[in-house]
Formats: sequence, C-alpha cells, structure tokens
Amino acid sequence: MKAERLDGKEVALKMTEEVSGKVKELKEKGIDPTLAIVRIGENPGDIAYEKGALKRAEKMGIEVKQFILPSDADEDEVVECIKQINDDDSIHGVLMFRPLPKHMDEAKICETLDPRKDVDGITSGSMAGVFMGTDRGYPPCTAEACIAILDHYGIDLEGKKVTVMGRSPVIGKPVAMLAMKRNATITVLHSRTGKENFAEAGRGADVVIAAIGKPKWIGKDQIGDDQIILDVGINVDENGKLCGDVDPAPAEERAKMLTPVPGGVGSVTTAILMKHVVQAADKILKNND
Amino acid sequence: MKAERLDGKEVALKMTEEVSGKVKELKEKGIDPTLAIVRIGENPGDIAYEKGALKRAEKMGIEVKQFILPSDADEDEVVECIKQINDDDSIHGVLMFRPLPKHMDEAKICETLDPRKDVDGITSGSMAGVFMGTDRGYPPCTAEACIAILDHYGIDLEGKKVTVMGRSPVIGKPVAMLAMKRNATITVLHSRTGKENFAEAGRGADVVIAAIGKPKWIGKDQIGDDQIILDVGINVDENGKLCGDVDPAPAEERAKMLTPVPGGVGSVTTAILMKHVVQAADKILKNND
Repeated sequence: MKAERLDGKEVALKMTEEVSGKVKELKEKGIDPTLAIVRIGENPGDIAYEKGALKRAEKMGIEVKQFILPSDADEDEVVECIKQINDDDSIHGVLMFRPLPKHMDEAKICETLDPRKDVDGITSGSMAGVFMGTDRGYPPCTAEACIAILDHYGIDLEGKKVTVMGRSPVIGKPVAMLAMKRNATITVLHSRTGKENFAEAGRGADVVIAAIGKPKWIGKDQIGDDQIILDVGINVDENGKLCGDVDPAPAEERAKMLTPVPGGVGSVTTAILMKHVVQAADKILKNND
Repeated sequence: MKAERLDGKEVALKMTEEVSGKVKELKEKGIDPTLAIVRIGENPGDIAYEKGALKRAEKMGIEVKQFILPSDADEDEVVECIKQINDDDSIHGVLMFRPLPKHMDEAKICETLDPRKDVDGITSGSMAGVFMGTDRGYPPCTAEACIAILDHYGIDLEGKKVTVMGRSPVIGKPVAMLAMKRNATITVLHSRTGKENFAEAGRGADVVIAAIGKPKWIGKDQIGDDQIILDVGINVDENGKLCGDVDPAPAEERAKMLTPVPGGVGSVTTAILMKHVVQAADKILKNND
C-alpha cells in the first residue's frame, strides 16, 4: 500500500480542541453556543448522524436543542418550528435533516430560516455566498469538510486540477466552488458525463473529490498515479459493510493520499457544523458590542 | 476560412419577433411590460449598452423608465431609487449598471431589489437559482445569451466537454452552471490556471466559452480542431477596433463554429433582458389570475 491516509478523525480532533477553546471564551462572555436540530420522522441515517452530532457537541461544550416532528407532520408545522427557532435568541444555528418528506415544499421551508442561523448552507443567501465566493452565510458542512482536510494536511489547491465527481447541491456543486475559490481549476463530472470523458478527467486530475453515491464505483480506470483522493461517499457494500465511492484496492496502490471510509470526510462534517455554530454565536456577540 | 459563423444578430432577431408577439398579448390583457434602467454616472460603456437596450425595447414594444443618478450619489439615494422601483407596480424588471461606484456596498444594494423584478440575476435568490439549477429568478443575461445561441443553432450540450474561460460572477460562473444544467461536463479556467493546464483544457474541449476580458488572448495554443467557440469578450484592440478574447485568425481556421465580435454574444444580451422583462410581467399576470 502506497497511499498515505488522510485521517478525518485527526482533523476533527484538532478542530474540536480549537472550537472548544472558542466555546469557553464565549461562555465567559455570557453566550452559550447552541445548535437546534430539526428532524422529521425516524430515518435511521438521520438518527445516526444526530447521535454523532450530539457527541461532538458535548465534547465541545455546545448545547443542542432537538425538535423532532412526526413523519406525517404538515408543511405548516415545520414552518412554525423554524419560525420559533428564528425567534429564539438562545439558538445560534440550525441543522435540519433533508430531504424533507415529499409532500413538503423544501425550498420554501429552507428559505424561512433566518440566514444568520443557516450553519449548514440551506438558504439562498448561503448558496449565493458559496457560488460567488464571498463570506456570506455558511457552505454546506460536508463540502467545507473536504477543504478542511486538505488544509490540515497542507495541500494547496492553487493551480491544481481538481476533478469533482458528482454535482449534488450539498456536496458536488459547493465543493467545486470552494476549490475554485482556492484557485483550483475545476472540472465537474456527473451521471450524464460519458464513460470515456469520466475516466479521462478522473485520471488527469491532481485532486479527486468523489461524491457520486455509488459503492466502490471509481476504480482503476478512473484513478491516476500520485493523486490526492477525497472519498465523500458513504455507501453499504455487498457484504453490508460501509464503503466509499472509490474502490480502495486500486486507489491505495496508485494514489499519493486517500481518505478512508469510514474515518475520512464524514468524520469532519459534524466538527465543521459545530464550528459554524460558534461562528454564528460569535457574530451575534460582535454585533451586540 | 473554415468556421461557420454563429450569428448573434440572427438569434436576436428571432427572439425579438417572439417576444414582440408576447408583448402584444400582454398589452391586450392590460399589462404594459416595462423595464427600469438604473445608471449612476456617465460611463461610456453603460451609455452605449443603454442605447442598445432602448432600441431593442422599442422594437419589441417594451416601455423603459430611466433612473439616472449623479456619480457622486450616495448609497442611500440608490437604495431609495430601488425601493421606489420595487413599489411601482408598473415596472416589471430592472437593469442596474455595475460595478457601482466604489464607495457603495454593491451586495447590499442588489439585495434591496424585489427578487421578482431581478431580470439580470443580481439578487441572491437569482444566484441560488442559477447555482442550483432551479427556475428561481433569472440568470445574468450574457450567460443566458450563450445558451440561447447554442439552442438557436441546434447544438446540444448533453455529454459535451465545455470549457469556460473566466470565472466572473456575471458570465463565467453562471454560464458554467447553465451548461451543467444541460448535462455538459464543465471545466472552469481562470487567471490562476497555469499556462499548460489552460492550453490543455482549451484544446480538449468540444465547446469553448471565452470570457476572460483580454483582447485576442486565446490563440492557436488554446484552440483545438472542430470546436464550437463562443467569444464573450468585448475589448478594444491595438488599432482601437472592437475585438473579442479569441484571436480570430487561428479560430476561423480550426473551429467548426464561432461567434464573431461584434455581432455575436453581445448582440443577444439585450434581447434576453427584454425576454426576462416579459416573463416577469407574465408571472405577475398569472399570479393575479
């Protein structure tokens, strides 16, 4: 095995220490950084992520208020819940699990959220900020987690060819914009990219960010030598085990650096979320000064 | 000369006919599609564009109200002007020349505009719409003009490699998103892309969209055979003549299709602007039904 392991847990640990220090400072100034979690129904993936977020928040000294609605809740109830959170000065940031049930207008509900509390990048203000490369709002946490891992390991994107595999609103599109802000030259591949073009752009990249949601789909044809590969996928393989979008065998053989699954990008996401909550709390403090 | 000419004037003419028909329909229903133009100061480029817009509007039967402020106007005056336009039900869309004078907070002023009147894609709602590929708001007119030319000439982007040269908020970034929505595989080059990577991604593309703002900078090293090239640049060359970002001599020799400058993308922009005004007026009519 040649590839160096890009350890998400290490990144999250360091960030936890930094954020914990900031939380202490804020508490001394009378502010108790607080995250609201809005969950509708009992999706096991949501519940697992929530458990991780609660653990991470506890480590950092961040409060969490849970708002759990039944899966048959109607749109008005969710909007009311968001409005209540908007009006509650003790809450600084919101994580709302998506996709919402199909009978709801997700875009409308997201837009109800106070942009200052939008720590997971779901309002149009945050989206415009990511798209335009301004510091308005907050990028989706998983996209920022990719950049945080690269930063932690001292990998500069300036002038690099970054190939993003996937164009989803929560990872592919925003991470492409964040990489471009770091002066990378980006290429975005997706389900309608032809097989040949996909392989060519995969092999030709300096950095690959894989976020297509297909277990081990990216294999030796799509991987080049000495690449840095971030595997954002969290899938279940044929044996029921967690795996990424990248087939680890050829990747470990050829890549220079690689995030594992689990223990890679996913491990950093909740740390970013908490960092955003603390930033949001800090902004409120500064505006009150 | 090998390259077929992609004639922007032809595209604009066809669009003018279509939009004029729609204007007539709206007028019969008692709605007079109206554009507000907000200009601060006397920038010659703004004035030239304004003149073109007035001509195009007249051809289509669209009303224009001009709001011209002195170059030393302060931020509050511009905000007041926008608010007045927001409140004026007879106005359906706004073109505001940018960049605004440096002493103004451009992002704040843009955000003051009623999103329903944002026919040139300057509010965060429109930006989020372009970024996420939804039909919310309106894309910047020049970006949409590129797609309109491709559509007019029956060029399908599905599965094509589209290289966008430039990452500006008004053309590079949004046109990349619009091309991706048409299922193109996009690569975005910019000032920090290395010379070699720039040439490689230029030559390797099926479709090139050039928007870097450097006269004739894209030459034989960056151009491949049989490409479709859209030249968005409007520059002045060493002899004081209008020219694009693409050096026409090698491009005409090698490309399959090419937009001229002038007479290419720029000719379509005001037609798109007016189309958006009519769409905005039409939406208001439908909401009143």
